[in-house]
Amino acid sequence: MFESAELGHKIDKETFRAEEPKVRAALLEAQFELQEKADFPVVLLISGVDGGGKSETINLLYEWMDPRYLSTLAFSEPTDEERERPYMWRFWRALPPKGRIGIFAGSWYSHPIAERIRGDLSKSSLDQRMDQINRFEAMLVNEGALVIKLWFHLSKEGQRQRLKALEKDPRTAWRVTPESWARLKTYDRLQEVAGHILRTTNSPWAPWDVVEGTDDRYRALRVGKILLNALQNRLADTRDQNFPVAPPMAPRIDNLNVLTALDLTQKLDKDAYEAQLAKWQGRLAELVRHPEFKKHSLILAFEGSDAAGKGGGIRRVTEALDARQYQIVPVAAPTDEERAQPYLWRFWRHIPRCGRVTIFDRTWYGRVLVERVEGFCGEADWLRAYTEINDFEHELHEDGAIVVKFWLQISDKEQLRRFKEREKVEFKRFKITEDDWRNRGKSEAYQAAVCDMVDRTSTGTAPWTLVEADDKNFARVKILRTICERLESVLAPQKAKNKKDSKQ
Amino acid sequence: MFESAELGHKIDKETFRAEEPKVRAALLEAQFELQEKADFPVVLLISGVDGGGKSETINLLYEWMDPRYLSTLAFSEPTDEERERPYMWRFWRALPPKGRIGIFAGSWYSHPIAERIRGDLSKSSLDQRMDQINRFEAMLVNEGALVIKLWFHLSKEGQRQRLKALEKDPRTAWRVTPESWARLKTYDRLQEVAGHILRTTNSPWAPWDVVEGTDDRYRALRVGKILLNALQNRLADTRDQNFPVAPPMAPRIDNLNVLTALDLTQKLDKDAYEAQLAKWQGRLAELVRHPEFKKHSLILAFEGSDAAGKGGGIRRVTEALDARQYQIVPVAAPTDEERAQPYLWRFWRHIPRCGRVTIFDRTWYGRVLVERVEGFCGEADWLRAYTEINDFEHELHEDGAIVVKFWLQISDKEQLRRFKEREKVEFKRFKITEDDWRNRGKSEAYQAAVCDMVDRTSTGTAPWTLVEADDKNFARVKILRTICERLESVLAPQKAKNKKDSKQ
Repeated sequence: MFESAELGHKIDKETFRAEEPKVRAALLEAQFELQEKADFPVVLLISGVDGGGKSETINLLYEWMDPRYLSTLAFSEPTDEERERPYMWRFWRALPPKGRIGIFAGSWYSHPIAERIRGDLSKSSLDQRMDQINRFEAMLVNEGALVIKLWFHLSKEGQRQRLKALEKDPRTAWRVTPESWARLKTYDRLQEVAGHILRTTNSPWAPWDVVEGTDDRYRALRVGKILLNALQNRLADTRDQNFPVAPPMAPRIDNLNVLTALDLTQKLDKDAYEAQLAKWQGRLAELVRHPEFKKHSLILAFEGSDAAGKGGGIRRVTEALDARQYQIVPVAAPTDEERAQPYLWRFWRHIPRCGRVTIFDRTWYGRVLVERVEGFCGEADWLRAYTEINDFEHELHEDGAIVVKFWLQISDKEQLRRFKEREKVEFKRFKITEDDWRNRGKSEAYQAAVCDMVDRTSTGTAPWTLVEADDKNFARVKILRTICERLESVLAPQKAKNKKDSKQ
Repeated sequence: MFESAELGHKIDKETFRAEEPKVRAALLEAQFELQEKADFPVVLLISGVDGGGKSETINLLYEWMDPRYLSTLAFSEPTDEERERPYMWRFWRALPPKGRIGIFAGSWYSHPIAERIRGDLSKSSLDQRMDQINRFEAMLVNEGALVIKLWFHLSKEGQRQRLKALEKDPRTAWRVTPESWARLKTYDRLQEVAGHILRTTNSPWAPWDVVEGTDDRYRALRVGKILLNALQNRLADTRDQNFPVAPPMAPRIDNLNVLTALDLTQKLDKDAYEAQLAKWQGRLAELVRHPEFKKHSLILAFEGSDAAGKGGGIRRVTEALDARQYQIVPVAAPTDEERAQPYLWRFWRHIPRCGRVTIFDRTWYGRVLVERVEGFCGEADWLRAYTEINDFEHELHEDGAIVVKFWLQISDKEQLRRFKEREKVEFKRFKITEDDWRNRGKSEAYQAAVCDMVDRTSTGTAPWTLVEADDKNFARVKILRTICERLESVLAPQKAKNKKDSKQ
């Protein structure tokens, strides 16, 4: 969930100076329209790691907008009054009325997160609370509210540096307490808990936006545009608001994303490749014969640009396996029988039993990639698919399946080269179609779809691995190594941990 | 949830003979249209207590409809194949394709219910599973499926008699096993678990229909009409199916309901009334001063027909209380401030703290009563309100609040008498308005709304008490006694239990 927010997004001073007045003016105007004409309240949740810029953001919103129609609600320890009533009572009394924006500094998420980190809340009790929150937010949205949920994220190193910077500046040093440093120690635990919570409450009616908190200007502009975009869209929406309205995807304000951040020049020469290939294929062959693997199954999901080398990657994997143990499922247009069922049905039918491997060559992500871009399904359908897919993978994980997902990325230039080569070589010609050429024209839409997919479905239990695939050797080894490491972390966790530690 | 299914519904032979051919013909026709033209599957879940008529119903549907387009899926112990895959896999592979009806004898609910009864599943794990089921069913409905969930209910005595009858008949004796009798022993536990599950999974997109299982003809006709009604409505629905469609309320096939079943002739003469009144008011005064009450609060919800005597009933309650301890909230048209918030907000603001009492004279049920009948809110809004209200009351209950809900019912004749009296007596005239007269004309719509309300919101944690209110004395004493008994069961559970046992 946090991939896009660890890339080191930055906005330079000049861009910011040019953009800020525009965003401010538009925000003020939207706020005015909201309070004059609109029939809905805005609930804005500000959450995230310490030092991620939560209070700076709130101050900025006050500077940018008309503070008379903003209310900020900070929730620390509950008062006497609050303690003697149900947990949600304090939030109910703080809800903004129609036409106003209520900024929640801390929210109904704060307590469950803190309790879970302290170990005072079991996993199932946490899920129970998240279910209640989902129902509550659905009710808010059904009642007309626009719910915007922001999560400010810092990488562990980013958080350390941020605390140091705050401490150094005499104007902000007071904000750094011993608790702040203590929280750095529980960073990993927070990420794990937050990842789970963001996944289970990333509902189509009230999704999360994760904002990288490192750079002040980037954070400010991003929040401003998310809020502006959501307000403008909703103000312009004339649909009957009886149903939860799928909110738009958050705007991107720079060209840095999980795909453009990849270093596609990475290479492996022939000798290194052959040595590595042998090493990881050998390791994989051992791992799928590990006695512990009988309690698990392995599900490999391959997605990627056209001609990125999925087939070749898959072949290098299967070379290490026994043909009786695996099944490759190539995913093309659905059959009649499949079309008569929910879209996940065609994947459920191929779920492996224990001790087996299923390799999907293209996957259930088709819905949020090709079906989204080509308009084969409605917006509401692909928006809800993120949650459905997360639920699906979570269920697989809970049952012991190990789900490894690859996106193979190649540069435009390399893709063009491969396309031309395919046309020339007789036995490769079947691989290239009109569609492939046509898709190249839509590469921007595909890129946005891939980034959203990674942001919304790269979970702790089933993370995405992005593979730099301009060099086939490099890609194949990265795929094999990733599979082996995931298997090891599950089948022989202690061994995997020791290895990791000795590397550091 | 089970009130309507313990009334002893019966259909006589003649009515059945007249009705059955019509239902059959219409069902066949609807089934034909479904398989020829329609683009959705039907998922029919058959669940409920043993002896409630589950298998009879399935056999009957096969007799009534074209069996080539029906499939029945019975799930007993999972096979090897199934055990080695996630729990939901067996259901995914059994889903009916578009145009077909899949009858699930046992379903994704069976296992969690059995595990919970055996004590193998904690309450929070159960809720976690129910959340997963809700998400799964939402996905099915979003993908176009029509999901119909039937729960066959028998009272405890009804189940005992049914087992005896099956045992006596040589054709069915084989169906009664020692396990059947054993299950009678866990009847109360099943009711408790089932009540909770039905409440949490009674979603607007896939609600439960509870069917009384005692009388074969009633059960058959009711199931037939529920299925027919759902099919016909969906086939006629031309809306874009991108959103979960709120299914219609189930049809009623006789005039017996929780209101018509009340014996309104019950009376208390003056002497008995005064003795009883003094007794229960004294008891109530003690109970709200009980040291345990400091950890709880009491929420009294009064609804009822016009002129049913809510005010008088409330006064008899407050006479036993200290004025500093309670608050009466009369609910009329919402204020401007309240209108700018979700409809439950105006009730949340009056939630009492520990040790206090809040009495609502009319309540949050306005949404499913007057707002539904008068069309003040959309169908989708009042349909989702049942779930929202249950969530609300559940939250209150979890926090220690004791929620006692009364519906005061008077006969048409008695209402007319009181209306006329009010017009005559100077100091009562303010109580009667044009609206009251107008509402009398809608009594049938109001009656249906009250029955649906009781069926969908009478939960284990916050049950409805229906009060026969033609005689004011009788009504007032029943209200006071009910409050005292609920308080006792929470504050001094052992004492309350002993009393109950000694009564038996």
